Amino acid sequence: MDIETKILKDINSPDDLKKVPEEELDNLAQEIRDVLIDTVSHTGGHLASNLGAVELTLAIHRVFDSPKDKIVWDVGHQAYTHKLITGRFDTFDTLRQQDGLSGFCHPNESEHDTFYSGHSGTSISSAYGIAQANKIKHNDNYTVAVIGDGSFTGGLVYEALNNAGRSKSNLIVVLNDNAMSISPNVGALAKHLAVLRSKHRYVSMKARIEKTLDKIPLVGHKMANLLYKAKTTVKNFLYGSTIFEQMGFRYMGPVDGHNMEILTEALTAAKALHAPVILHVNTVKGKGYDYAEKDPSHFHGISNFDIDTGEWKHGGDTYCNEFGKLMCQMSEKDKRISLITAAMSLGTGLTEFSEKYKDRFFDVGIAEEHAVTFASGLSKGGMIPVFAVYSTFLQRCYDQIIHDGALQDQKLVLAVDRAGFVGDDGETHNGLYDVAFLSSIPKVTIYSPCTYDEMKIDFGNAFYRDSDVVAVRYPRGAEPEMPEDFEPSFGTYDLYGYLSAKIVIVTYGRIFSEAAKAAKALMEKDIKVKVLKLNRIKPIDNDAIEAVIDAQKIFFFEEGVRSGGVGEKFASALLQKEYRGKYNLTAVEDCFVKQAKVPELIKMYGLDSESIAEKIVQSEESQEV
Amino acid sequence: MDIETKILKDINSPDDLKKVPEEELDNLAQEIRDVLIDTVSHTGGHLASNLGAVELTLAIHRVFDSPKDKIVWDVGHQAYTHKLITGRFDTFDTLRQQDGLSGFCHPNESEHDTFYSGHSGTSISSAYGIAQANKIKHNDNYTVAVIGDGSFTGGLVYEALNNAGRSKSNLIVVLNDNAMSISPNVGALAKHLAVLRSKHRYVSMKARIEKTLDKIPLVGHKMANLLYKAKTTVKNFLYGSTIFEQMGFRYMGPVDGHNMEILTEALTAAKALHAPVILHVNTVKGKGYDYAEKDPSHFHGISNFDIDTGEWKHGGDTYCNEFGKLMCQMSEKDKRISLITAAMSLGTGLTEFSEKYKDRFFDVGIAEEHAVTFASGLSKGGMIPVFAVYSTFLQRCYDQIIHDGALQDQKLVLAVDRAGFVGDDGETHNGLYDVAFLSSIPKVTIYSPCTYDEMKIDFGNAFYRDSDVVAVRYPRGAEPEMPEDFEPSFGTYDLYGYLSAKIVIVTYGRIFSEAAKAAKALMEKDIKVKVLKLNRIKPIDNDAIEAVIDAQKIFFFEEGVRSGGVGEKFASALLQKEYRGKYNLTAVEDCFVKQAKVPELIKMYGLDSESIAEKIVQSEESQEV
Repeated sequence: MDIETKILKDINSPDDLKKVPEEELDNLAQEIRDVLIDTVSHTGGHLASNLGAVELTLAIHRVFDSPKDKIVWDVGHQAYTHKLITGRFDTFDTLRQQDGLSGFCHPNESEHDTFYSGHSGTSISSAYGIAQANKIKHNDNYTVAVIGDGSFTGGLVYEALNNAGRSKSNLIVVLNDNAMSISPNVGALAKHLAVLRSKHRYVSMKARIEKTLDKIPLVGHKMANLLYKAKTTVKNFLYGSTIFEQMGFRYMGPVDGHNMEILTEALTAAKALHAPVILHVNTVKGKGYDYAEKDPSHFHGISNFDIDTGEWKHGGDTYCNEFGKLMCQMSEKDKRISLITAAMSLGTGLTEFSEKYKDRFFDVGIAEEHAVTFASGLSKGGMIPVFAVYSTFLQRCYDQIIHDGALQDQKLVLAVDRAGFVGDDGETHNGLYDVAFLSSIPKVTIYSPCTYDEMKIDFGNAFYRDSDVVAVRYPRGAEPEMPEDFEPSFGTYDLYGYLSAKIVIVTYGRIFSEAAKAAKALMEKDIKVKVLKLNRIKPIDNDAIEAVIDAQKIFFFEEGVRSGGVGEKFASALLQKEYRGKYNLTAVEDCFVKQAKVPELIKMYGLDSESIAEKIVQSEESQEV
Repeated sequence: MDIETKILKDINSPDDLKKVPEEELDNLAQEIRDVLIDTVSHTGGHLASNLGAVELTLAIHRVFDSPKDKIVWDVGHQAYTHKLITGRFDTFDTLRQQDGLSGFCHPNESEHDTFYSGHSGTSISSAYGIAQANKIKHNDNYTVAVIGDGSFTGGLVYEALNNAGRSKSNLIVVLNDNAMSISPNVGALAKHLAVLRSKHRYVSMKARIEKTLDKIPLVGHKMANLLYKAKTTVKNFLYGSTIFEQMGFRYMGPVDGHNMEILTEALTAAKALHAPVILHVNTVKGKGYDYAEKDPSHFHGISNFDIDTGEWKHGGDTYCNEFGKLMCQMSEKDKRISLITAAMSLGTGLTEFSEKYKDRFFDVGIAEEHAVTFASGLSKGGMIPVFAVYSTFLQRCYDQIIHDGALQDQKLVLAVDRAGFVGDDGETHNGLYDVAFLSSIPKVTIYSPCTYDEMKIDFGNAFYRDSDVVAVRYPRGAEPEMPEDFEPSFGTYDLYGYLSAKIVIVTYGRIFSEAAKAAKALMEKDIKVKVLKLNRIKPIDNDAIEAVIDAQKIFFFEEGVRSGGVGEKFASALLQKEYRGKYNLTAVEDCFVKQAKVPELIKMYGLDSESIAEKIVQSEESQEV
């Protein structure tokens, strides 16, 4: 890194930060922005949200006393500045790399990281838990949740506000309002925030008064409270009250999130209230880097890019893009098809659809539960609803898939993107559970196609052949290389290789490509192998089991958790049919999978062609499975 | 039934209801109340909420035109009156009985039942889906969601409001506010509603004006809109705006929910707006039956009771009560233990705890997601949080258990009540999935004790031995009869019966009692059997598998779904260890389980002692598993 970091290089803790003279803070912010832009241009990561939170982070760490006071970063992809000033500047270039720093907060990295968080909307709930624990233990420490306006479209935030409002705990919620979640924000609350944003900045004066009062010990807090109440009455008369006040919070703001002085005053005032406070802070997503300010959606989560031109590596063909194109094609012919996204229209490949079929496109905000239940209503109204969602976020609507999906006897299609390993985002984002949890739900059909063509057929089945809830799951990235001699049947399963072989590899999804390569390599060693490739993984076709019941050895390879996955189910079916050969299951064991590139992960978990071949060779040599 | 139902007996549809002269409506309401009280006193069911919704239901069906207009009952346990006037009066005494009427709405029963719903907070989402489908299809039908104030503590409602607000759809949300969910309501919104409730009933006059205007075709709607806006401005000036208006809804009310005339006027006015409306209706839970009005919590969901005295059958000892007592005992000694409930303090046995340990008891409202994430914060703050929740509602926090539980490397205890069949509540409420979905999560330990004593040991393990997320699951009702010669080890598993037997029954939880009885019966027929009783079901103890690996036949009996359950996992482990005997798994297949008494269900799904014994006898006779 050839960036000047005169001030930053000496900051290893919040205490160091507190020693930086006020007049140098703007320079420090600039240094941090330089590091952020430079690093993310190499490593990829979340850029725009972090550029927007530089001053806010500095102000919070100067006003509060971490780790005694707990700072809880919602999602955690706005916490890069926090990482830089809590002892991780030297290792910052390992961000999101294998064995490097996590792209999110992570308690294993630092005592200043309170939770490990990658899903949005959790911060107020967990911060309120800490605040209550502090109260039980009679200590006065503060808990600060820093949360973006995008997260406020999710119900968990509302449940937390409803519970924490009027609780008299030292809970401060900093609403980092950049008027965007990942895509521009949707919904009624976004409009409410827009109205608030336009109000006069009355808090600044108030904050100054309170700061002064705060210097008078004991009396200070009481007076600040009184003054707050008086101000609030006046303000409500002039502007009407905010939704937050109706939820029992003190509302302050909005204040300029790039002005250190104002931020510091406002946070200090919030401290003095000793009650649940929402401090509304206006920030600019992408602040300080022109390309990111202009197109913050693309610079939200980004792969490496060219700093000078702002150009990033375009992905080319991916399952995600193919899905988007397919939906456009199918919707042209069938006016019932409706697409739903939870604030991920770009991420799920639906940009074109959202422009072409406005009346049948629904961005519901970061509200996965609602997405499914809303889809249930669309279905009742005669539409064919498709909820396009990452596997990791689908976890949020397990009950809705049971209760508002499968139970209702009507069509609901789940397009499950990023199923399997996702790579750099790490533990919180891997799509390793969807097969297990969807399989546990009655009347759910699950497809796990390997190629774009197969995916298209599977969606056709989902729309026009199968009933009830149908999930089509596909991985991040592009279709894998397929063996030339493979002729897909587009049925529920395929057999490939030496068909009378007594050694069988069973797998599904993109791992078939690895299995096929392994089979070829094994054939060259005179080990005859066939591959059973499942397309529909629930229900498993009885014929598929019959096709391998006479095998001597079956090796199952699964890109997903072992517990509740297809491999266990397959074993159970084999045993019930009195299969008498050997059985070996390779899947992700009872652990969370850390960040690394996808091909690395496939290798690490024994699912690449070499590992597959090696396992079989070893078994043959030792005559042991 | 010796109740007079002169008017009710001739009502078979909403059309019939519309023909009832206004002056007879009060008598009709009285007839309905008599039927409700009489029927529920025999069948058990939801009484208090239904008594509160009689007039509201009548008014809705007189103003709207079901099934063209869709009425969506949230939860559905307020829909008994709806059932009575939509052709189900004659069969109403089969309520909640096997093969009888469902205790909730059910589309299979009537075209007037829009969804099958038993979990709260789903109605606005699904109703909005229908409203959007109507819009796409350019029809003007109305969609009416009827939802209690208790449901408003859940985040799904907020996600729906946020999405539907300002949507210009014909969506009418009737907020049936009885100031209670099941227990008295908690949280900031409840307080907001309390304030609204106390306002002048200004809407009545407004409704009259609009009704008059509505008679002038075409112009009417526009004028009603203008008048609404004028009124709102005046009202906001006087009273401040409501949270609903800030979410983009028109807010009307509150109105008296037991006055048919006012209700009819208000609903008619709401119709005229052609925009998302919230009509706030005040009702009295238990209205018309003194005992229920005085103690609505106990008359929420109740078993049969004596009408004259209001006395109901007390349950005696249950797992639930034992759990409550245990928590009080353990919390006395360990000040870190904190209990969380999602609006179910009575249902989960925590009444005594909630009174004795106020500072460590948290009722978070019907907000299961928040409950888990909040618990994560308590844990971080040094407490031992225990979330007591029914299995069926735990489904709502699958992602939070992964992301805010298991991932965080800290203690979180789940007390999973009503695990297994629940009986009369039927499909929506059975606790058949928790084993499967909890098993799929890394680092989760699951116990499924059979007796109270074992449950106590398991909670001890959860608190002081195991780490991370630990679930202890126990069924509804009382401990089953245990064989006299069974000596529990209180370890991870037990063996019972003829220990060198080659026929093995494997099971867990209360089904062990059935298995033990079956074993005895089989021994009498000279069929030697042993029973492997699992206490910890995740991870399965390797020794438990080794203990049966030499068996000739293994029969697994599981009170839960097959897919992802313990039986499949056990089979997979056996196969991987080259078990060469036969294997048969009896569990709940891919279906939803309908209402019936628990012992009936156990029998129906082949899990009672007779079915178990018979299966093994048959296998011996035919030499087939």
